[in-house]
Amino acid sequence: MKAYPSVKLRPHAKTHKCAMLARLQIQSGAVGLCCQKLTEAEALVQGGIQDVLLSNQVINKKKLLRLASLARSAHIAVCVDSERNIEDLSEAAKTLDVMLDIVIEVNVGGFRCGVEPGPDVARLAKKVMSLPNIRFKGLHCYNGRNQHIRSLADRQAAVNEVIEKTKLALSALKESEIECNYVTGGGTGTFHLEAASEVFTEVQPGSYVFMDVDYGLNLDGEEKFVSEFQQSLYILSTVQSVAENRAIVDVGLKAVSLDSGVPTVKNSGDQVYISGGDEHGVIVPPGDLKVGDQLWLIPGHCDPTVNMHEWIVGMRDGRVESIWPIGGKGPGI
Amino acid sequence: MKAYPSVKLRPHAKTHKCAMLARLQIQSGAVGLCCQKLTEAEALVQGGIQDVLLSNQVINKKKLLRLASLARSAHIAVCVDSERNIEDLSEAAKTLDVMLDIVIEVNVGGFRCGVEPGPDVARLAKKVMSLPNIRFKGLHCYNGRNQHIRSLADRQAAVNEVIEKTKLALSALKESEIECNYVTGGGTGTFHLEAASEVFTEVQPGSYVFMDVDYGLNLDGEEKFVSEFQQSLYILSTVQSVAENRAIVDVGLKAVSLDSGVPTVKNSGDQVYISGGDEHGVIVPPGDLKVGDQLWLIPGHCDPTVNMHEWIVGMRDGRVESIWPIGGKGPGI
Repeated sequence: MKAYPSVKLRPHAKTHKCAMLARLQIQSGAVGLCCQKLTEAEALVQGGIQDVLLSNQVINKKKLLRLASLARSAHIAVCVDSERNIEDLSEAAKTLDVMLDIVIEVNVGGFRCGVEPGPDVARLAKKVMSLPNIRFKGLHCYNGRNQHIRSLADRQAAVNEVIEKTKLALSALKESEIECNYVTGGGTGTFHLEAASEVFTEVQPGSYVFMDVDYGLNLDGEEKFVSEFQQSLYILSTVQSVAENRAIVDVGLKAVSLDSGVPTVKNSGDQVYISGGDEHGVIVPPGDLKVGDQLWLIPGHCDPTVNMHEWIVGMRDGRVESIWPIGGKGPGI
Repeated sequence: MKAYPSVKLRPHAKTHKCAMLARLQIQSGAVGLCCQKLTEAEALVQGGIQDVLLSNQVINKKKLLRLASLARSAHIAVCVDSERNIEDLSEAAKTLDVMLDIVIEVNVGGFRCGVEPGPDVARLAKKVMSLPNIRFKGLHCYNGRNQHIRSLADRQAAVNEVIEKTKLALSALKESEIECNYVTGGGTGTFHLEAASEVFTEVQPGSYVFMDVDYGLNLDGEEKFVSEFQQSLYILSTVQSVAENRAIVDVGLKAVSLDSGVPTVKNSGDQVYISGGDEHGVIVPPGDLKVGDQLWLIPGHCDPTVNMHEWIVGMRDGRVESIWPIGGKGPGI
């Protein structure tokens, strides 16, 4: 894969929510971490991460004081898309005498958060620049859905739309003579396309660190499965029941998220996992499985699966090397 | 609703995983609690519950010692469906010098765990009776899928199959001259049907304590929504972004399980929740919502939603009355 030395890597910690893993990412060259929830930002800063972008809105004055307090220990940036939120951020930062960097979230096609690319971007940037204890850092231009488009050509087409909308947002800033040297976005499925765009200065893939069944279905330019990242995340399940036509494992939807499809079984041959409800998975055919056997499951979707667990157990060559708390887990609401 | 005074209530704690709530259920007449995972049993016993049925298999000798240790503080029963597991349970109970009650799980149509109703039931009961520190308590005959069948007539037909299979299992025991005075099963959708069967001695509804969108769709004999239980569980979400055609709340699939459908919005009028991914929900139309407003969401499925949270905040008439830890939360694997 081509390198883009001027584009920075800021991995997204919504995937792992684990400061120990984040520190390894920093040691490997990342400039900082992204996260999606205040509780994740707290876990990262408490775990020694010095540069965190909360790529989402934080609402509610008590939460904003918690966010601002993190700026005493680390460089903190946060996304906004409303004037009210900008005012509240300035007030919280002023109360604690800290500086917060503000990133304007732009709707680049996800139709979730973010202002439309156009005059609203400049309006919010001016608002940021008019208030104390906050400063305008740049733009957040991310469309999560694009990450899971299978063919590379379709993914490129979708990212081209993101790039066009990002350019519109940058033009609006330029028209208002507002300098912008920071554009962040991209995920595991598209980050190399944003990196090649000459518009993005930073990419924020998260899932690459673990991978999952869903990302494993993305294709490269030759219609082969993208293979640049290996699967590293597994849920270790135990067979608890065996019948003639099925085996039952102790991992159901309270232990592996089914939102993007069921897990697959590592080295399974023809065995598949069928949902058995909240606490069970049904493995068919049972083959020669017996009660007590263990199966390694590859989650359908890594982020919400990790969110259900307390610990990441690091293994290499069959031995445990590390046990890391998933400090930022939880709903974060 | 007709009362069945000879049938005991053993609510299922897989719904709430909360000992404080379990104690209220005991105070209201429940004979004990069910749970589905060892970690849930531990939370219940540590929270003062004296009688717990773990309505699932526990595998792995270390876990069995943890289970057996609970029998020093409470009356513990556990489900089995294999001879190997019965041997391991006896060994663990003997090691800790405790007595464990053993309940044989029968496959009554769920095709998950459980032995077929027939000679295997008697074989396992004899196995239990042959080993020290464990004793045969009775049968577990539960089919989770039946709970969510919408029409009462269809639900009754499905439960009739459960009852027939349960009678087959009881006949197999009788043929082997094994006494059985305990049959447990039934959930929120069907418990009154099992209670009326004259076969079941105990029912184990769980969701009734909270309810959810899915259970709210079950119909009674007059094709009206069953109304015997009120919705008591909500996820309190905050509006974080508002655009022309949508509002965004801070509750996504890491805070509310989408496995049985999306949440609905309390007192919403025409507003609906659309999945916005891991950390967001999209509310359309936005109406007059503004950033900072709060919406009460009724989860699609209560059990896995509660599993994502740390605390239950008890409210009455707009005031907080209690804050209870969800002690048994987690994947429990």
